[in-house]
Amino acid sequence: MTEKKSTTNKGLQQQTSKGIAAIHPEKTKVVIVGGKGKMGRFFSQLFRQSSYNLAILEIGDWDRSADILLEASLVLVCVPIDQTSQVIQKLSALPGNCILADLTSIKSEPLEQMLKVHPGPVVGLHPMFGPDVTSLVKQVIIVCDGRKARAYQWLLEQFQLWGCNLHKVGVDDHDQAMSLIQALRHFNTFVAGLQLMNENADLERLLDFSSPVYRLELAMIGRLFAQSPDLYCEIIFNSQQSVELIERYLTLYQKAFETLKQGDKDTFKNTFKDVSKWFSPHAEVLFKESSALLAKANEEPS
Amino acid sequence: MTEKKSTTNKGLQQQTSKGIAAIHPEKTKVVIVGGKGKMGRFFSQLFRQSSYNLAILEIGDWDRSADILLEASLVLVCVPIDQTSQVIQKLSALPGNCILADLTSIKSEPLEQMLKVHPGPVVGLHPMFGPDVTSLVKQVIIVCDGRKARAYQWLLEQFQLWGCNLHKVGVDDHDQAMSLIQALRHFNTFVAGLQLMNENADLERLLDFSSPVYRLELAMIGRLFAQSPDLYCEIIFNSQQSVELIERYLTLYQKAFETLKQGDKDTFKNTFKDVSKWFSPHAEVLFKESSALLAKANEEPS
Repeated sequence: MTEKKSTTNKGLQQQTSKGIAAIHPEKTKVVIVGGKGKMGRFFSQLFRQSSYNLAILEIGDWDRSADILLEASLVLVCVPIDQTSQVIQKLSALPGNCILADLTSIKSEPLEQMLKVHPGPVVGLHPMFGPDVTSLVKQVIIVCDGRKARAYQWLLEQFQLWGCNLHKVGVDDHDQAMSLIQALRHFNTFVAGLQLMNENADLERLLDFSSPVYRLELAMIGRLFAQSPDLYCEIIFNSQQSVELIERYLTLYQKAFETLKQGDKDTFKNTFKDVSKWFSPHAEVLFKESSALLAKANEEPS
Repeated sequence: MTEKKSTTNKGLQQQTSKGIAAIHPEKTKVVIVGGKGKMGRFFSQLFRQSSYNLAILEIGDWDRSADILLEASLVLVCVPIDQTSQVIQKLSALPGNCILADLTSIKSEPLEQMLKVHPGPVVGLHPMFGPDVTSLVKQVIIVCDGRKARAYQWLLEQFQLWGCNLHKVGVDDHDQAMSLIQALRHFNTFVAGLQLMNENADLERLLDFSSPVYRLELAMIGRLFAQSPDLYCEIIFNSQQSVELIERYLTLYQKAFETLKQGDKDTFKNTFKDVSKWFSPHAEVLFKESSALLAKANEEPS
């Protein structure tokens, strides 16, 4: 890969024999570190289908890593969040033009470490989806610029070709948003599932009773517990910022519960109106968006 | 309405000129108490389109209520939950064969009151949907039997003709399930929205960053705050059982947060596995159901 790659535009896109659009894959060696994990396999398949020269560096391959990394154009770190730091440390001898990128769901520390270990192009990526998606269309990848953005422009264009929406943002803004979007949300869902178990709720009956909107909420809870405890543990536990956010949520919950316990309907309603006002005009848009989706859920054959 | 009605079967269904199927509407007088509220208007329209003889009894009409209720076959109480009790007390002089029914989201107290005030057929209904639905198809109505079930069989069949799924259940089981399905869920969503405001979250950015699954969760929060504070206040505050359930949730949350604060990943993962086991086999089904729905969300034109 040369700087020429970074100026590749859509006119230079190619369709491979498998019909997966690619940005000049020939001679572009992509090494996926952790390529046999779920996300690793997911991206390996995409690069392979787009005819890139793909190599995998797995946990048992470090003794021959020099060979695997030789002439790499892109090294993509796809390992579990608690191993990211340790793996990045080992990537200190990449080719000068090689892009070093990671997919970790927190961005400030990995990006800092990548910039330290590798003097060439560096970019932090955070796919906002899991390996179970059936298509990349409209899936979001958050991009945190590291160094030499022109050199990894072709990679961003490749993600776009696969259908992704990219959003560039600073690492701090990223990590703050993720505390809300991921850590708090997953933690709350975890507690919701735990309570259903503790109350020994009759799931069959709850599902029978449920109109589409609550079936969906139950589905969101069930969805979490059908996935890996390790993944969610790392997302929730690995950021002090998230722990603090969750603590603020708990404090707020306690306060709101006091209002409820005292039967103070006026305070509840006034707070409700304040939040409605704050949410507006998003509330109306979100209401319509969810109604449309629920109508779709309802069209499903039973 | 006579006992003959209760044996009406689908062979006797009629299509009205507007194409809304009806169970023998002629001469069947339906009185909707609170017929100008949102749910009242919703059901008024349905009964009217199905050619029932519809009358409305609104808050200013009680001085001529004897006339309005004269020869009624069905009196459907569609008033806000905090007025239900007071309204039911006023319905002590209904025709002997008249069905008395309510739509309140708690069932034990209203049903008890209806049975006390009216010696004829009584049934408690709880529609698990709001007046914004575009169709009744697959929408759930929970039915709590009161008295003389044969006499209100035609009414249940009418709901089924409109597309509803009916589920019969005892009042205690209903109220227990609703604490989970409604009060706790709405309260949690309320606190989630309140926190977004308190953190002054950048909603535009959160939406930009969000893949379909989190957009949907934001939509669920926005959805709540686009609706009436009074409605949600009554659902959440009007059951001691719900307050106790929410208190147990808070206790659980505090305990889970202690685990997080101590960085005790093992306890988190073990609890996660316990809940996964309890959820199974529903987890897998719910995961697939939500994935299918999310795929649909994704097909939406942007």
